[in-house]
Formats: sequence, structure tokens, C-alpha cells
Amino acid sequence: MHVEHLGWSRSGALRILDQTLLPAEERWLEIATLPALVEAIRSLRVRGAPAIGIAAAMGLVAVLRERTKSGVPEEAYEDGVRRAADEGGARARILAAVDETAWAIGSARPTAVNLRWAMERMRRCAQTAAGAPDAVLEALRDEAQAIWDEDRAMCQAIAEHGQTLMRPGIRIVTHCNTGALATGGIGTALGIVLLAAERGQGPEVFVDETRPLWQGSRLTAWELQRAGIRYVVQPDSAAASLMAQGKVDLVLVGADRIARNGDVANKLGTLPLAIVARHHGVPFYSVAPSSSFDPACPSGAAIPIEHREAAEVTAPFGVPVAPAASAAFNPAFDVTPATLVTGYVTQRGIVHPPFEE
Amino acid sequence: MHVEHLGWSRSGALRILDQTLLPAEERWLEIATLPALVEAIRSLRVRGAPAIGIAAAMGLVAVLRERTKSGVPEEAYEDGVRRAADEGGARARILAAVDETAWAIGSARPTAVNLRWAMERMRRCAQTAAGAPDAVLEALRDEAQAIWDEDRAMCQAIAEHGQTLMRPGIRIVTHCNTGALATGGIGTALGIVLLAAERGQGPEVFVDETRPLWQGSRLTAWELQRAGIRYVVQPDSAAASLMAQGKVDLVLVGADRIARNGDVANKLGTLPLAIVARHHGVPFYSVAPSSSFDPACPSGAAIPIEHREAAEVTAPFGVPVAPAASAAFNPAFDVTPATLVTGYVTQRGIVHPPFEE
Repeated sequence: MHVEHLGWSRSGALRILDQTLLPAEERWLEIATLPALVEAIRSLRVRGAPAIGIAAAMGLVAVLRERTKSGVPEEAYEDGVRRAADEGGARARILAAVDETAWAIGSARPTAVNLRWAMERMRRCAQTAAGAPDAVLEALRDEAQAIWDEDRAMCQAIAEHGQTLMRPGIRIVTHCNTGALATGGIGTALGIVLLAAERGQGPEVFVDETRPLWQGSRLTAWELQRAGIRYVVQPDSAAASLMAQGKVDLVLVGADRIARNGDVANKLGTLPLAIVARHHGVPFYSVAPSSSFDPACPSGAAIPIEHREAAEVTAPFGVPVAPAASAAFNPAFDVTPATLVTGYVTQRGIVHPPFEE
Repeated sequence: MHVEHLGWSRSGALRILDQTLLPAEERWLEIATLPALVEAIRSLRVRGAPAIGIAAAMGLVAVLRERTKSGVPEEAYEDGVRRAADEGGARARILAAVDETAWAIGSARPTAVNLRWAMERMRRCAQTAAGAPDAVLEALRDEAQAIWDEDRAMCQAIAEHGQTLMRPGIRIVTHCNTGALATGGIGTALGIVLLAAERGQGPEVFVDETRPLWQGSRLTAWELQRAGIRYVVQPDSAAASLMAQGKVDLVLVGADRIARNGDVANKLGTLPLAIVARHHGVPFYSVAPSSSFDPACPSGAAIPIEHREAAEVTAPFGVPVAPAASAAFNPAFDVTPATLVTGYVTQRGIVHPPFEE
């Protein structure tokens, strides 16, 4: 069984497991306001491209429900919504509220395409839903649930397709977290490993710690330990040593956005891992559901890269590891050119660029 | 002026700046016992291949002086020395003590060749020194001082030769610490940068943080800040992004041991940096004094690699970032094949393998 880290509370709020506290503490948050939702996404309390999309969709519903409880949404909303509210009836108000809220959520993080994809889908759903605000909200709730359910099914299909890459005792390097915690199901890249383990392949995983936020050692190692899979954590720069010694059979990573030409934006550290894998002749696969593909994006050069605050690098856990006032280069993602990617594992199978709609 | 981090105390002890506490605290240690010296080297209170060699030589003198103060060294020494003491007079005892102590110090860390090179040199010095224990000790003190003085001169010569690689506004990636703190002088790789800055070249340095022990952000950034040189710290996996954007002109790293064929053992992370530099066509130089060259070592495959404890990776500063009982792959060094090294900057100029005596 994989970890469930998302859900609805009884009151209709979004429940998430706060991933910033793992593995030390398992604390659940209930989120029903826009600031709390945006903060949770920005602070990586929920992270992983597919999971962000799902949490954003569910969170959008929770925020709208909370705000419409009183029946006077126009008082609760931002200026733009109040303007819309002046224009007409309850249906116009809820559609405007959806629109404004979706934009606010969609701009919380710039790189993962799933976030905007989910918000766009929710906006379209609201526009095409019939009837009064309650019916629109109900349709949105169903749509958010569908996004989650579909992701779960996609993860399963991805994991199945990925089994063609598995063999007994396979030794895999992975980066960041691409497991259940990053998705609405078993995971993407790590889901392949989890399923392989269930099927007795006995995989062994070398887990890149993934500086600066340690999603590898904090989250991936936690999932692997729970699943009883052999793993070792390592500094991000250690994978090259393993490969030089012939100890790595395969690299599996996720994707935050895949351009039409196959360039992959993914967690910082993916690019050097891909280069190092190519240098040593180790196959390198990017694993992602279709919601991570952005056919509107021609190449990696067009993908906006989020830059995060220096303190993540210079003062981990508040402990200064660099002189005060040191500047840091801290992009959350890098772009791996398609030429370095052996293949893309999706719910439809292992595919190759160019990717069209 | 570069940082002085080594010295003799008035009582003849080895004084070192405890590098594990930088940049938060500047604490000096006085070392006059073998356990304290070995601990300081193992715990990286003094580190950097050249600096380890110097501190080991000076520390050897301090330990021997402390032990011979009472005039009964045979009581103070380990079993092996006591055996030697039984064999004869005071001179035999001091030579045996030098031998035993040098072996104990020389085994503190396995990878850097400078440590054993310095201990071998001190043993030879003792054997060829004339006279009574006091004269032997005096000769050893002079030899240790000579090792230090020569390293300072080598650093200066290296930095001069390295200026041929500099140009105004040059953008350099460096890894770990190769500055004054790693040597007895201005530094090796970083020494080139420090001298270039003194000469108005205005270099800019991208400092790899260097997990797991942050020698880059803790030590290199500290030296650069004191020298007023522009720098940015970054996760080790960020250099590839900079290179992909054409923002890096040169990579300069040090060396803990260079084999006859030119393979370089250096801080973990050097190998992926070299691969990534080659991929992007960025020149990659290893910078080291002749004491880091090991002509007895045919290739990198013959260099022993120190593996350090898991907690450095899984619980930095005691904060767990991985589940309890997680194993870690934590080699202190990796081996960069000679084919990835553009050149070797030494006190004799920029050279290329094979390296003979």
C-alpha cells in the first residue's frame, strides 16, 4: 500500500500531510483559505508536480466552499471579484470567484505545468457547469476528485509500463521524490520501483538526497523504508562515483514540465545526473503523466524556472553554513535536453518526442 | 593577505583554527598529543591535502616534544615504542617514537597523499639527523617548518602560473575549499583566484557548497568574503545549470592525490563537475603542489577512497533528514579520469601526464 497524503476533511477542507516536517513528524493540515493554500504550495508542504495539481484543484473547491458558506461571496473575495460581483447574479459571482482564485493558486509556483493545467481544467469545468453556485461547486468538487482519481490510475498505468525496464536486483538512482507523496497514487518514477518490489524484483535504490531541501532523503527514503525496499541515501554528487564503478543500471526521475521537443524541467540536479548517466552509458528515463507534458511549450528554453530564497542553501534548518549575507544561486529546477533522455515513461507507454496534443 | 590558520604555540604545540566551526566561530586549538592530533585530522578540524601534510608534520613535532619533556619517552608511548625502547639508548628511542607516531598520524586519513608524504619525509629527516634526541627534535622542527614554508612558496608559484588562465571578469566554478585554509599559503585553486583579484581581474566565483560537510559554503565563501571577491554559493548540482546558460568560463579544483596517469582523487563531487564541464566545453583544471602527485600510484583505480559515517549525510548538524537507521553512501572523494582534466596547474607550471618522479 502506498502512502495517502491528500484528502478531504469532513467539513470539505483540503487535508494534506505536511511534507516539510517529514520524516521527523507526520502532521496533517486542514486548508480552506486561499492564503493557506498558496502558502502550502509555495512552502512545499505539498509538492511534486502531479500532487500540486491535485491539491490545487481540491484546495480551490475547499476555498470556494468556505467563502460561499455565508452566501455573500462578494464580501469575501479580492477586488477583482468584487468588481465581477457588481456585474450580476450569483452564477456570475461564483464563476468570477473561480477565475480569480484559480489564477491566484496557479501563480503560486511557476515551473510545474500541472498546477496551471489543473486550474485551467477547473475553470473550464465551472464555465460549462449548469445552474446555480451550489451546482457549480458540486461540479468542481467532482472535477477535483476526477483529477485525483485519474492521476491515481495514471500512476498505476505508468508503473505497469515501467516494468519493462525492471529486472531482478536492478540498481536504480533516483532524484528528489517521485513517489506517492508527489502524486495522487503510487507515484511516477518511484511508483515503477514500488510496483517492481511488490512483484518480487528486489530493486535497490540509490537515493540522491536532493539539496537544498532533501526531498530524496526526507521523502523518498521514508517511502522506501515503509515499503521495505533496500535503499541508500547519498549526496547528489555521489551518483557519478557509483556509475564509474558500474553499480548503476538505470536512472529514473520525474518531470515538472516536458516541452514539445522533449526537454525536461525537473528538480535541480536532474541535468547533471542525466549528463553523468550519458557519460557512463546508463539509461536515463523521465517518468510523468500526460499532465506534465506541455505541448504549448516548444523547448526547455521557454520554461520559466523558479528561483528560491538563498537561505535554503546558506542556512539549512536555520543553521548558517555560509557567511552572513552570502548570495546563493538557488534555482528549484533545471532543464535536461531531450538528447540526454533515453525515453519518457507515461501512462500510454514509453514514448519519444516530438510530443503533440 | 590570506588567512593564517596554522602555527606554533609558545609552548611548541600545534595551533590550528578549528575549521569545523567556521564560519560561525573562529576558535583556535592547541594540540600536543597524538590522540588530539589524529582526532583533529579525522574530524576535519584541519583539512585540505597540503594543510593536512603541514599540520601532521608540525603536530608530530609537538607530540614528540610533549612526550620527551619528562625524559622518559618509553613510558609515554604505545606498546610498539616500549619494545623499541628496550632495544637501546635515547637516540634509538626517539627514532622509534618518530616512526610509530608518524605511522599513527599517517593512517588518520587514507586518500590524501600529502599526509603520508609528509610523514615519510619526517621519518627520513629523523633517521639522517645527527646526535641526541634534542638534536633530532630540533631537526624535525626545522623540517616541519620547511614543509610549511615550501608549501607557502609553492602556493605562490602555483598562483602565478595560474594567472595565464585568468582574464578580466572571469567566471569560475570551484568545489570544496582550496584556499589558504587548505594549505600553508595562499591556496591552490582558490589561490589563483585570490591573486587574480589582487591584480584587479575582478573574478566572480560560483562556490559549490560541497555536501556533505559544506567546505565550499563554510570555508571558501568565508575566504572570498574576507578578500572582497564576488561570490555566490550554490548546491553542488547547480553548476550544470550555469554552464548550460554559458555563465561559466573555467572550473578550478584541487587534488588530494594525482596518479601517474593523471587521474585525480579529490573531494566528492569533482567527478560529476568534470563530466558536466566537458559536456559543456568548459575548461577544467586541477591545481596542486607536487606533494599531491603520487608517482607510485599508476592510476585512480589504485587510490584508496575514504568512506565516512552515514550521519554526515543523514543528520547534518544532528538534524535527521532521513529516516532513522538509513544507510548512506558517503565516500569523501571521487576519482576524475585524466581524460576529463584540461590541465594540471603546479608550482612548475601547467603540466600534463604521464607524471614521473
